[in-house]
Amino acid sequence: MSEFLKKVVIERLDGDTAVIEEDVTIQESRMSVFLNGEKAISMMCIPVDQDAHALGFLMGEGVISDVSDVDKIEISEDGLRVDIFTNKINEESLKHLYTEKTLVSGCGGGITGNVENAVEVDFIESDFTVEVDYIRSNVKQFYQESELYRLTGCVHKAMLILDDGLTICAEDIGRHNAIDKVVGKARLSGKCTSRAILVVSGRLSSEMVVKAVMHKLPIVVSRTAPTFLGVKTAMAHGITLIGFARGQKMNIYSHSARLSGFKRVGI
Amino acid sequence: MSEFLKKVVIERLDGDTAVIEEDVTIQESRMSVFLNGEKAISMMCIPVDQDAHALGFLMGEGVISDVSDVDKIEISEDGLRVDIFTNKINEESLKHLYTEKTLVSGCGGGITGNVENAVEVDFIESDFTVEVDYIRSNVKQFYQESELYRLTGCVHKAMLILDDGLTICAEDIGRHNAIDKVVGKARLSGKCTSRAILVVSGRLSSEMVVKAVMHKLPIVVSRTAPTFLGVKTAMAHGITLIGFARGQKMNIYSHSARLSGFKRVGI
Repeated sequence: MSEFLKKVVIERLDGDTAVIEEDVTIQESRMSVFLNGEKAISMMCIPVDQDAHALGFLMGEGVISDVSDVDKIEISEDGLRVDIFTNKINEESLKHLYTEKTLVSGCGGGITGNVENAVEVDFIESDFTVEVDYIRSNVKQFYQESELYRLTGCVHKAMLILDDGLTICAEDIGRHNAIDKVVGKARLSGKCTSRAILVVSGRLSSEMVVKAVMHKLPIVVSRTAPTFLGVKTAMAHGITLIGFARGQKMNIYSHSARLSGFKRVGI
Repeated sequence: MSEFLKKVVIERLDGDTAVIEEDVTIQESRMSVFLNGEKAISMMCIPVDQDAHALGFLMGEGVISDVSDVDKIEISEDGLRVDIFTNKINEESLKHLYTEKTLVSGCGGGITGNVENAVEVDFIESDFTVEVDYIRSNVKQFYQESELYRLTGCVHKAMLILDDGLTICAEDIGRHNAIDKVVGKARLSGKCTSRAILVVSGRLSSEMVVKAVMHKLPIVVSRTAPTFLGVKTAMAHGITLIGFARGQKMNIYSHSARLSGFKRVGI
């Protein structure tokens, strides 16, 4: 990843003295995603894992439903253009790529007609359970292994802990992008994510939780805070949402029945 | 702002015991901005200072050039719709609201024809200078006064320090939004921003620096890191960019001639 570290000359001020010296910053680039030759979106990111990034994003938006629908993914020589060729596009989701998305329960019941871009999703009913100590040890490792953050203070990280204990990691300047990348990497390698734990460094706003719902990830963990809408989205769609996971502590916001290894008090 | 704090019941786990108790999260809402009756954009935000938010955003995107072009701003009763009526719209910028924007020097020279949505900006040539101690004392105050962050850990803050020493603050779940709000508030109250200092809590990616360029803010300060493209944008367009402003320390990345009260060593 060191090719994304760019040197700059700074004045490092402390008290009344500024030392002129070299420092490193992270490079961000604009990557464009083309779907069957048509430009779908462009985004600022660290251009690595571009195929996974583009695929994870489009699947999270419901534009592509299954990785088996993808015929070919090409990355341009400069790394800033990804071409995805697929035989099956959800045109409605593609049309609404820049507008709001409303998740509705996939219960077969009626969907109100005035919801713009309603995406039907199933409640996540995974029977997957884990010990909280297992999450703690993985989270500890997660924080120890981010060299880009240590050097630049300017990246987010995401990690998928798969059912077999293997982990998939990605870093990016954007917390959205880091999630898209890890899920895309799992898809590209044919890994099952329905028994996976998503660990992220950033806040859990509703948009982050929606990504987890779209990718059917049962447990989401962050070192920092969720929003109220993030909590409500997790409750409504069956996500175990954990915030402020630091050392022995974590706040559990929803569906804690998937977690074991502790007792509950306070009622 | 307390109406945006929402109570939730959480399991606060520490070691092997989870205490079931009340906690607060921040509410986020989707706000839609309509321009002369047509929907321009919708965004997740804390719906407060909606008029300033919408105006600051549209001016930062170059859609509206001057606050005097605005005839009327209306906020719906539920606070989630802002209607801006203006007699002058930059249609080209509006068309490109969702695509990249490329800043080019407003030197009257030739613009290459293949740059999509080129926005011509002048190099910021403000003769405004400040003592670094003045920035430090304002930054110190900036961190002490964020109740929403203290309670939820889930908001960004921005502050404009005006030439007369007055400050304008705003908080939001998004760092983009917080900047749009403070600049919009300054515009709505007729304040001059060409001798103002922008202080932000979030990272200085290129998009944040571009906002400062568009609003002609000569000095930008963050408690955290810039990206390489953020530094390059600041250099190219005349912004004094300061990162990692904490206590007596700060890293100065560009155009430090506007800053006084320290000596330089190390060459």
